[in-house]
Amino acid sequence: MTSERIWTAGLLVIGDEILSGRTQDRNIAQIATWLNLQGVRLAEVRVVADDMGAIGEAVNALRARNDYLFTTGGIGPTHDDITVDAIAAALGVGVVVHPKARAALEAYYAARGGSVTEARLRMARVPEGAELIENKMSGAPGIRLNNIFILAGVPHIATLMLEALSGQLEGGRPLLSRTIGCWAPESEVAELLRATEAAHEGCQIGSYPFYKEGKAGANFVIRSTDEGALEACASDLGARLQEAGMPVVGEEI
Amino acid sequence: MTSERIWTAGLLVIGDEILSGRTQDRNIAQIATWLNLQGVRLAEVRVVADDMGAIGEAVNALRARNDYLFTTGGIGPTHDDITVDAIAAALGVGVVVHPKARAALEAYYAARGGSVTEARLRMARVPEGAELIENKMSGAPGIRLNNIFILAGVPHIATLMLEALSGQLEGGRPLLSRTIGCWAPESEVAELLRATEAAHEGCQIGSYPFYKEGKAGANFVIRSTDEGALEACASDLGARLQEAGMPVVGEEI
Repeated sequence: MTSERIWTAGLLVIGDEILSGRTQDRNIAQIATWLNLQGVRLAEVRVVADDMGAIGEAVNALRARNDYLFTTGGIGPTHDDITVDAIAAALGVGVVVHPKARAALEAYYAARGGSVTEARLRMARVPEGAELIENKMSGAPGIRLNNIFILAGVPHIATLMLEALSGQLEGGRPLLSRTIGCWAPESEVAELLRATEAAHEGCQIGSYPFYKEGKAGANFVIRSTDEGALEACASDLGARLQEAGMPVVGEEI
Repeated sequence: MTSERIWTAGLLVIGDEILSGRTQDRNIAQIATWLNLQGVRLAEVRVVADDMGAIGEAVNALRARNDYLFTTGGIGPTHDDITVDAIAAALGVGVVVHPKARAALEAYYAARGGSVTEARLRMARVPEGAELIENKMSGAPGIRLNNIFILAGVPHIATLMLEALSGQLEGGRPLLSRTIGCWAPESEVAELLRATEAAHEGCQIGSYPFYKEGKAGANFVIRSTDEGALEACASDLGARLQEAGMPVVGEEI
């Protein structure tokens, strides 16, 4: 169990709009959830500004220590969209117009009575050697270069790109989870949680407290790549909470 | 203008629940917004797991190059709450029980007919030399150690801690912003945006496209620390969009 290979990904969220607080990021959660299904664990996220140096440094740090690197944001047609240039510079490769991306943009705008202007052509630029990630929504593709995946910042377009990538990544066993909701103030069950986790190798228990209806409670999340170990741990935790006078209410409160 | 000192902060979000996708982070946006009001710019965010090494590395990287470091998460009473230990280790200082934090917990639990157990006492542990950040909600304080601010992960508790810190940080002029919403496909105004930004020193223009009601549009966000420069840039951008046949609709679409 513990010696099984764990595949990891880093995620780089690029955009002044996240760091200014204007936009609430939604890509971290959606990419994390999607990666779990691919058997890949999101190990670290960084959020940086629309800045060549900051993007390049984060790209090189995250790709060096993860199996995969995902980025979101900065692939549109305007002057603040510098992701492709920054990643190409970080990798020491040039930037080229991808013929398929140009063709996709031409088809997209022709169908809408427009044409591919210089600004629109920016969206067909890729680091040399890259492939495209399909995007039926806007004509502007995502980009794959080896283990680097460059996605749109707009969450529903990123979703479509993830769908196009589903099943394409080599990964390990998906990380499974079970949630147990309970009206237990977490400080009263801290030792119980620690002992339960210690008794079940390959399982981690997270504790997420809340106050609802005027009462303290917590959701306990058990995570494991082994379904049998997960169920055994969940069952044991339920029994221990019951014994402590704090019966499990359901899967999640 | 351009030589004025810019104060920056790094933010470290700590928690397996964010990296697993279970929990949608809300602290990045709220802390970014709050920092802007204090005249401090959020320069970088990292999200790491509940792991001593990962937390320590990120703490040292972010505090070295920012005026301030904020962290969220991992300060509760359970075994997965290791933020205080990880930060103390990263700084090379010990961990102590803060007498005021112990007193606050005792008062909090006494008022609720409970007592301060060993698990609850974990919430009074701080890196040596730290002060407390008030938290009327739960009795468990935030922690300030020089330029490091250790906040709760639960967003509404983090909010209370930010309120307690409002006006306490030395900062520069707040970053101001104006948003202009327009039914302009951003690829048609890319050059217009670039030229407008270039004509207004000290202003940045971000372009955030959307598709609504079956049409392409974009919100253009102008940011500056100088109110006069901001208004002049916004007015110029509005005039250029009008001239291009894509009049501004309002502050934001």
